[in-house]
Amino acid sequence: MKYKLIGKIVFNKDISQYKEKVFEFLKKAENEILKGFKNLDEINYKSKYEISDDKSIKGEINTENKSAHIIFYRIRKTLAEHIGKELHIGISSLEIELLNINFPLEKLPQEEISIPFIDKININNNNKTCSIEINKVDKNFITKGNVERIIKRIKEKIDRSYYEGKAEYHKILYESPRKEIKIKDDPTIEMVKKNWIAPASTKGKWIYWPPATNIFNTLEKIVLEELLKPLGFNEIKNSNIVSGEDVWIKTGHLEGMPMEIYYVAEPRTRNTKEWEYFIDLIKITQEIPYDELKNMIQLEPLKGLVYAQCPSIYWAFKGKTISDESFPILLFEKTTNSFRYESGGRHGIERVDEFHRIEVVFIGEPNNLIDIQKKFMDKYKKIFNDILEIEWRMASVTPFYMQQAGDLFKEETIEGQLGTIDYEAWLPYRGSREESEWLEFQNFSIVGDKYIKAFNLKNQKKKIIWSGCTGIGLERWVAVFLAQHGFNIEDWPEKFRNYLDKMPSEIKFF
Amino acid sequence: MKYKLIGKIVFNKDISQYKEKVFEFLKKAENEILKGFKNLDEINYKSKYEISDDKSIKGEINTENKSAHIIFYRIRKTLAEHIGKELHIGISSLEIELLNINFPLEKLPQEEISIPFIDKININNNNKTCSIEINKVDKNFITKGNVERIIKRIKEKIDRSYYEGKAEYHKILYESPRKEIKIKDDPTIEMVKKNWIAPASTKGKWIYWPPATNIFNTLEKIVLEELLKPLGFNEIKNSNIVSGEDVWIKTGHLEGMPMEIYYVAEPRTRNTKEWEYFIDLIKITQEIPYDELKNMIQLEPLKGLVYAQCPSIYWAFKGKTISDESFPILLFEKTTNSFRYESGGRHGIERVDEFHRIEVVFIGEPNNLIDIQKKFMDKYKKIFNDILEIEWRMASVTPFYMQQAGDLFKEETIEGQLGTIDYEAWLPYRGSREESEWLEFQNFSIVGDKYIKAFNLKNQKKKIIWSGCTGIGLERWVAVFLAQHGFNIEDWPEKFRNYLDKMPSEIKFF
Repeated sequence: MKYKLIGKIVFNKDISQYKEKVFEFLKKAENEILKGFKNLDEINYKSKYEISDDKSIKGEINTENKSAHIIFYRIRKTLAEHIGKELHIGISSLEIELLNINFPLEKLPQEEISIPFIDKININNNNKTCSIEINKVDKNFITKGNVERIIKRIKEKIDRSYYEGKAEYHKILYESPRKEIKIKDDPTIEMVKKNWIAPASTKGKWIYWPPATNIFNTLEKIVLEELLKPLGFNEIKNSNIVSGEDVWIKTGHLEGMPMEIYYVAEPRTRNTKEWEYFIDLIKITQEIPYDELKNMIQLEPLKGLVYAQCPSIYWAFKGKTISDESFPILLFEKTTNSFRYESGGRHGIERVDEFHRIEVVFIGEPNNLIDIQKKFMDKYKKIFNDILEIEWRMASVTPFYMQQAGDLFKEETIEGQLGTIDYEAWLPYRGSREESEWLEFQNFSIVGDKYIKAFNLKNQKKKIIWSGCTGIGLERWVAVFLAQHGFNIEDWPEKFRNYLDKMPSEIKFF
Repeated sequence: MKYKLIGKIVFNKDISQYKEKVFEFLKKAENEILKGFKNLDEINYKSKYEISDDKSIKGEINTENKSAHIIFYRIRKTLAEHIGKELHIGISSLEIELLNINFPLEKLPQEEISIPFIDKININNNNKTCSIEINKVDKNFITKGNVERIIKRIKEKIDRSYYEGKAEYHKILYESPRKEIKIKDDPTIEMVKKNWIAPASTKGKWIYWPPATNIFNTLEKIVLEELLKPLGFNEIKNSNIVSGEDVWIKTGHLEGMPMEIYYVAEPRTRNTKEWEYFIDLIKITQEIPYDELKNMIQLEPLKGLVYAQCPSIYWAFKGKTISDESFPILLFEKTTNSFRYESGGRHGIERVDEFHRIEVVFIGEPNNLIDIQKKFMDKYKKIFNDILEIEWRMASVTPFYMQQAGDLFKEETIEGQLGTIDYEAWLPYRGSREESEWLEFQNFSIVGDKYIKAFNLKNQKKKIIWSGCTGIGLERWVAVFLAQHGFNIEDWPEKFRNYLDKMPSEIKFF
């Protein structure tokens, strides 16, 4: 890795009469910093300076394997001490005019790469290196680590081009007994026909009339009675609005999924007088004055609707030290809806912009979590085989949090203790069990210390703690159940019917 | 009411050679229209026209009690027929250069009034009239009724200045027995201390940890078992996102409450490539690039979060003809949260930006609804007196839908069959029962045909149907219960405790 930096040190006084003294202190400052490094040979530090004008020095620094820009800022600090004390001169600014970095690549890019702040990326195919040039950047840019993240992002983009389009990792762990299935109807179409559901007032969302709601509630009861209560989980209610800065920047959702988030804007003011013009326009024209609305709302600080329920549950523990007696933490949340902008991907109630999910979160020592996983596997199997009587399978897949946070597919984490298991079911209306795509109707993940670290969760005894979650998608449970069992209540499994309240009659329209 | 209009009729051909013919047809068209009016004297129609240039005629129309601008557009239509047939000339446009309207006022304004589209409003204090001038408006502006709504809005603003600041109508209908109350703690503060609740990641919203959630669930169970199930209500699930154009323009919420709505913006595209620059910026800077975000989202068509649950329930019936067998329609919705930007008004869990409410809606013949009202009165009384054992009262107030839609306080609708009843409870921490402000913890309204008409709900037999609703605010029930009973479970009423699941222990932080 090679760095070349051209920069300028601007002083607060005319230095022309102290010229030699200043150069001397500059050398001194450089030497003090350099002697702190172990392998000076590998750094191969070279610099030259010249007077640029009466108040400034221009310099060029070349380094290897150590950031020239970091050294440059450290020189400033040490130099300032010397010339301050001896010459009563201060440094008013440090300017980086150009920073050129040449770094090795593991793989060569397969397509042109563009990246903010960099006008040109030069790839040398022969020695597999990449050279970038950053012009005119300020201190914040350097000290916040942006330069290092630019290099990381370039490598990430190259890596991605090799993975993109490749099939996701998918290894079947279990297959349920086959069921004899008599119907091939798309349950969404049937439910619309029967007035069980209807499109809501905005796209990709549904109204569930009493018969459909009754099925949702039955499934929820099964989850509570068969799974969550016996395993000692407690319910919490979280907010449906999530902070961009406090939550999503930390979990990576804002860099991973910004194209699917439903963003929320607050009124800029609650003062009625300031809204009077907007109100007048609506009252007069009966139309929405969008230009005026844009002036009346604010996006900052960023807020959005729940994308997945777990991030804000983890956030609730941010920076806290959890008492030993509270482990393992066993929680579930079913009050907030989840929102994802699915656009062209929408289909029926299986892929919607707003869905209802029971999100289960557990935090504890790794052994606890592996024990919890076993218990869930057993309970889920019982529910799907004995109560819902559906045809389903379990598969080890790319962990969802890696997909969502935009991380790359890292094979080594699969099939160990960390990772995601998808639960998939056959939807006969899509085609044969062999050829059609099965529906992922829920998943189970142990995500290690990813979120524990992101939110700095501590515990009394400083033990290693992990977290995990399993999201039970009610729309998808309903879709699977009805796609396999149809709409004739007499055909529904007996144990399911034991949980089912009397079906309310649908509202009839003429 | 006096109108003066100066306008221009532009033809598609040179009319100079047909000048007299055109004026003749113009008179003919005017006469045909005028003879359709009964009280021609009262209209006092006067007009004069002159050639403006080779292709256009300029005219001035003066009328009383009949809109000059409406007549002008009708003249166009009739004239076009005549000159089209006889002279093969068409009319290419009609331009209104000035429209002056002078209308009587019931009350004189108490402050200066401003209104869009009108540069100057002249008030004549002696003969109590208002004169407005509208310049250069197009056909759409006229035919959509904007002129009439400008006049209505001016009168509304004058009326409002007389009502503003006046106390709301409030007549106590019932007072519960007094309770001996031993505590004076603010339940929010106590709950925060005990780790029962915590602020969520954005302002004005709460996380309810297991002990608080358990109380919410207990109250919900009481509502379901004691009230909604016995009265035959069925649950539906609606969407948390509401259409501005389809719902709120029709219910009046967007003109009544725009300063409290949480607006929702969708991604402009779901294409990852188009978001790449945004993603790069976050990955590199770890900050949110708001300027870029603004380009990537869209507000149109307008969406917002549920403000009150009932509007989108009524919307679900839009334009439908409901079968006779489905009446009365008895529904409740408890899945969607409600959002209101409370800003400086926030306090504890009583006044929050996101709250949980069981919204109950009933649609049926007026007699049915009055019968339902009686049943609710009885059941509520039983719940508050015998199960929750709280000190509360009932008051007839300004109907909430009038406040929300920005309508004026109309005394005649109170205390009849239409109107709102507020349920209020004493919060001892606020002060004595006599001097402190009691908390409105729920309400009950019969709103007549307001929403039935707004959404054009029809029924098989063309009977008169009304609607009503009652919103059970769970945060406020919790606040009242804990403010009066405190945190010592042994002190809680026995019948309440029969519904209460074992209290989960709070998560302990170190």
